Amino acid sequence: MNEAYYLRLTDRLRELLREPEASEEGRLPAERVLAERFQTTRGTLRQALAQLEAEGIIHRSNRRGWFVSPPRLVYDPTRDAGFNDYVRAQGRRPRTEVLKVETRPHLPAAEALELPAPTLFYHIRRRRYVDDRAVLAESLWVVSDRVPGLLQERFDHSLWGLLRDRWHINLAHRSIRMFSEALGSCDARELGVMPGTAGLGVRRAIFDAERRPVEFDEEHWLHDALCIAVDI
Amino acid sequence: MNEAYYLRLTDRLRELLREPEASEEGRLPAERVLAERFQTTRGTLRQALAQLEAEGIIHRSNRRGWFVSPPRLVYDPTRDAGFNDYVRAQGRRPRTEVLKVETRPHLPAAEALELPAPTLFYHIRRRRYVDDRAVLAESLWVVSDRVPGLLQERFDHSLWGLLRDRWHINLAHRSIRMFSEALGSCDARELGVMPGTAGLGVRRAIFDAERRPVEFDEEHWLHDALCIAVDI
Repeated sequence: MNEAYYLRLTDRLRELLREPEASEEGRLPAERVLAERFQTTRGTLRQALAQLEAEGIIHRSNRRGWFVSPPRLVYDPTRDAGFNDYVRAQGRRPRTEVLKVETRPHLPAAEALELPAPTLFYHIRRRRYVDDRAVLAESLWVVSDRVPGLLQERFDHSLWGLLRDRWHINLAHRSIRMFSEALGSCDARELGVMPGTAGLGVRRAIFDAERRPVEFDEEHWLHDALCIAVDI
Repeated sequence: MNEAYYLRLTDRLRELLREPEASEEGRLPAERVLAERFQTTRGTLRQALAQLEAEGIIHRSNRRGWFVSPPRLVYDPTRDAGFNDYVRAQGRRPRTEVLKVETRPHLPAAEALELPAPTLFYHIRRRRYVDDRAVLAESLWVVSDRVPGLLQERFDHSLWGLLRDRWHINLAHRSIRMFSEALGSCDARELGVMPGTAGLGVRRAIFDAERRPVEFDEEHWLHDALCIAVDI
């Protein structure tokens, strides 16, 4: 196949997808119809569609054809905004579900916050939704000594707001690491996908203004749900 | 297969890999040897190895077996450092191979830089290595009007250095987007992996101090090669 032709076809499909009338409720016309419209073979068309799928622009739904993917949520790690704030600022609807609350040690949290291994953390496990799609499974590990009585609170809203307003903790310093990962079986189950599905991991070690450790977050995102944006 | 058994096997392999003598120059024993050692079937062993591959701990090399993956390279998008600089700063060895140089329009570049669709770009396609492992396939799209004669240069070193030193262009503003992706067929082939393998995409729209568009980068990283770090 001619590579230049395939690239041109991909660009033409890209343009087509921007027109609101191109898809019906996000669903693309059948491959046969698209192949006729662009006067190409099914094989070449499929390669162009696969390229757009790889870019996260469209996705396949079992037996139901091709769909336009919702835009990725944009997360700027250099800004001090919580999930609810940046989801709403992008005209989307956030929702949070608390799955588990417990107290226990956690080696990765202790290491990231430079605390002794037996340190006790309040562990809050949550699932978060954007427009009713579960996109994020997260574990928050809060140093229990810093926030006596925390577990009496509700966790279906902003934890950072709670720490600021109720405990007057200034979350001044964040060390953030982001990487591609394959979702483990627990995270995958909570997000309703197969274990091993591509995900985006975010880890955040959070310290107060005096550089005392406060919290360690482990976030697991569906791979097509998030885009990390940094403007400098 | 028993899920608990498979998870235990994965954890035992994980522990084994921490011992320096577990692998010979990073290479794991043959699957047959490992299956005997853990008294398991090749099928179960392969599932455990696939899980560790998904986590970025080991990787397969064509026909040569399994290898322990080197630590992820750390990239801080808020810093103004090029590939050669941050790879060397982490005690690793960078190398760049130029695959193609051409002149053509490119819609995503034009859109990201807010230029008309027919704008001509110099396209430089490169493969970049860390310690002799191909980890990055990238396309650089430089606005051709800004840098007459660019294609006479060599591109196996820093392009940003070239733009600064030879054309006195100050790459002052960068708008960076990072996301999980599946590698398309071209990127995958250049990195020696199967199409659809998990990758990390980085796009960078670069403007000069007067906010005039200069360059658009499309980077495709092997998913286990990079960690994005932001400290605030």
